Amino acid sequence: MITKPTFLIDEQKCRRNIQRILQKAQKSHTNFRPHFKTHQSLEIGRWFKEYGVDKITVSSVTMAEYFAEEWDDITIAFPVNILEIDSINQLAKNIKLNLIVESEESAKFLVEKIEFETGFFIKIDVGYHRTGISPKNFELIDKIIEISNESKKLHFKGFLTHAGHSYKARSFYEIKAIHEKSIKRIQPLKDHYKKIYPELIISVGDTPTCSIIDDFSMFDEIRPGNFVFYDLSQEQIGSCNIEQIAGVLACPIVAIHKNRNEIVIYGGGVHLSKERMEDDEYGTIYGRIVEQNDASWGEPIPNMYVKNLSQEHGIISVTDEEISRYKVGDLLYILPVHSCMTANLMDYYQTLDGKIIPRL
Amino acid sequence: MITKPTFLIDEQKCRRNIQRILQKAQKSHTNFRPHFKTHQSLEIGRWFKEYGVDKITVSSVTMAEYFAEEWDDITIAFPVNILEIDSINQLAKNIKLNLIVESEESAKFLVEKIEFETGFFIKIDVGYHRTGISPKNFELIDKIIEISNESKKLHFKGFLTHAGHSYKARSFYEIKAIHEKSIKRIQPLKDHYKKIYPELIISVGDTPTCSIIDDFSMFDEIRPGNFVFYDLSQEQIGSCNIEQIAGVLACPIVAIHKNRNEIVIYGGGVHLSKERMEDDEYGTIYGRIVEQNDASWGEPIPNMYVKNLSQEHGIISVTDEEISRYKVGDLLYILPVHSCMTANLMDYYQTLDGKIIPRL
Repeated sequence: MITKPTFLIDEQKCRRNIQRILQKAQKSHTNFRPHFKTHQSLEIGRWFKEYGVDKITVSSVTMAEYFAEEWDDITIAFPVNILEIDSINQLAKNIKLNLIVESEESAKFLVEKIEFETGFFIKIDVGYHRTGISPKNFELIDKIIEISNESKKLHFKGFLTHAGHSYKARSFYEIKAIHEKSIKRIQPLKDHYKKIYPELIISVGDTPTCSIIDDFSMFDEIRPGNFVFYDLSQEQIGSCNIEQIAGVLACPIVAIHKNRNEIVIYGGGVHLSKERMEDDEYGTIYGRIVEQNDASWGEPIPNMYVKNLSQEHGIISVTDEEISRYKVGDLLYILPVHSCMTANLMDYYQTLDGKIIPRL
Repeated sequence: MITKPTFLIDEQKCRRNIQRILQKAQKSHTNFRPHFKTHQSLEIGRWFKEYGVDKITVSSVTMAEYFAEEWDDITIAFPVNILEIDSINQLAKNIKLNLIVESEESAKFLVEKIEFETGFFIKIDVGYHRTGISPKNFELIDKIIEISNESKKLHFKGFLTHAGHSYKARSFYEIKAIHEKSIKRIQPLKDHYKKIYPELIISVGDTPTCSIIDDFSMFDEIRPGNFVFYDLSQEQIGSCNIEQIAGVLACPIVAIHKNRNEIVIYGGGVHLSKERMEDDEYGTIYGRIVEQNDASWGEPIPNMYVKNLSQEHGIISVTDEEISRYKVGDLLYILPVHSCMTANLMDYYQTLDGKIIPRL
């Protein structure tokens, strides 16, 4: 029985989301190295394994340590944090590990300190401008590879990109345009370095692109993560339909205020996160409420949304007709704005049939 | 040695923050029942105990269970979540427990299900409009008290308010105005019910009011929480000075982009939370960076702030002159926008002298 805010997973939706992307990757003969930062769960990882996935991506050394229990090929897709070199060496000793390098300093540090065979990717900025090297900066790229050659343990694997600006897209065509621009940006780099390093891997990863593009064959590897659950932001972007969202936060109703058309739930910023979005109809929202049915959940209820969040409280805006259907002690099912952030706040998840899914 | 995002506490600042509010409460002969939702730590709780605090406030049954190990008088300042009745009964068996009731439904439920002596407060809405009953609605208040009288185990303790709209204030005078309005709203209620229930407690709690008001004597109890750490939002409101902020998130630098005046840190929304604020000078920010010194930290560095956050990355905006002082592997100390949310994302805290502070 659910008595407090609980992230409920529709395992079938989740598995369909996994299979859909995997099949597109297989058809394109592209390696699928899913990002596990969204679910951070060994159990959900095993669902991927059932379909033959054997390599993963994570975004911290801590996550790599957690998943190394069951996975032996992990890329930490985050600029290497040199302060964690001891843990990195420990990982490299036990599994096939790939790191991200984007500066001469980090390359020099690794040359000096890495003790076991380790691969590395150079992060390329394809337009998101969060991290990475310009795809035109062959000089710096050459310099990093040259430095890395001083160590026999460091192996240049290729280029890694993240078109994070696709999260600002609002339609299929916008995502497609960003995707095509990314390809254009990375093509000369690929042409140049494939000649020198025929084994070179071009690894790309963002859920919007991987969701709407069918043919990945121009890439060697894809690393999407969010698609396992999807969320309202991805639906707004155009990456998924509402029906594909595989997780809801189930929250107890603790108060009903008919005079101001509000329901108060136990479920706040420490559960949903403070991630918000601009909805065309409702303005700033922190989640939407879905109909519950016997097996799972259905459509979002019109004119009902999470209006505000404090630490433990959520305020639901609701219509006159709708409000009379609820009483204190009922559960509301909330579609999260950003499932990665909501999932990260949970100690565990629960499937619709009551199975507890432990996580990091 | 700090190798990943870590919430660093200046214990001396923290203790001064505690003593300051406590002394004002003592001088006003008002009971001090601090809210522990901000730090959620038994160890920090012990600092309060050293100064004689013996009653606390929390915002969930889970927190009450955690603190019940060392505290025997706890108010759960959150509309009672009836789904957790089993845990509530377990708590009520072992400690002096107070709940919050704000509807007939919840009162009826408790009358039926409560098994041990339990106090309850009626939540009064003094203008924040998140939860609570209008202070003019004597009819509903009488009804709730009448229902509760059907159980010999349920004891009406008084009225609880939270002037959360004080968080929207931007100056000493605005906070004072909100405070005075709250008093005016609650005075008739107090006058009326004190006659019938002379032991009645008026309990108020919000950090802005408790920080700037010196005389609490018109209240029986105060329950502020955030003041233990304070943060940038409280500084903007006018509750504290920058020097009183007792916690920073220490984050490793993982990349430096001189061409766009940005530093990338390991420290993202899963560490700082996505809580943001509008700064007069810098627009939307997610934190500011302070100078580090031998003993602790000093002033915020001008023109340096957290510009954006993704799951694990933080982007720091920094000037030309400043950027050359940093290298990959250095730590940046970040003042959080909202310390309750940042602290909640931590597995533990660390004091400046390296002591690990466990938390819930």
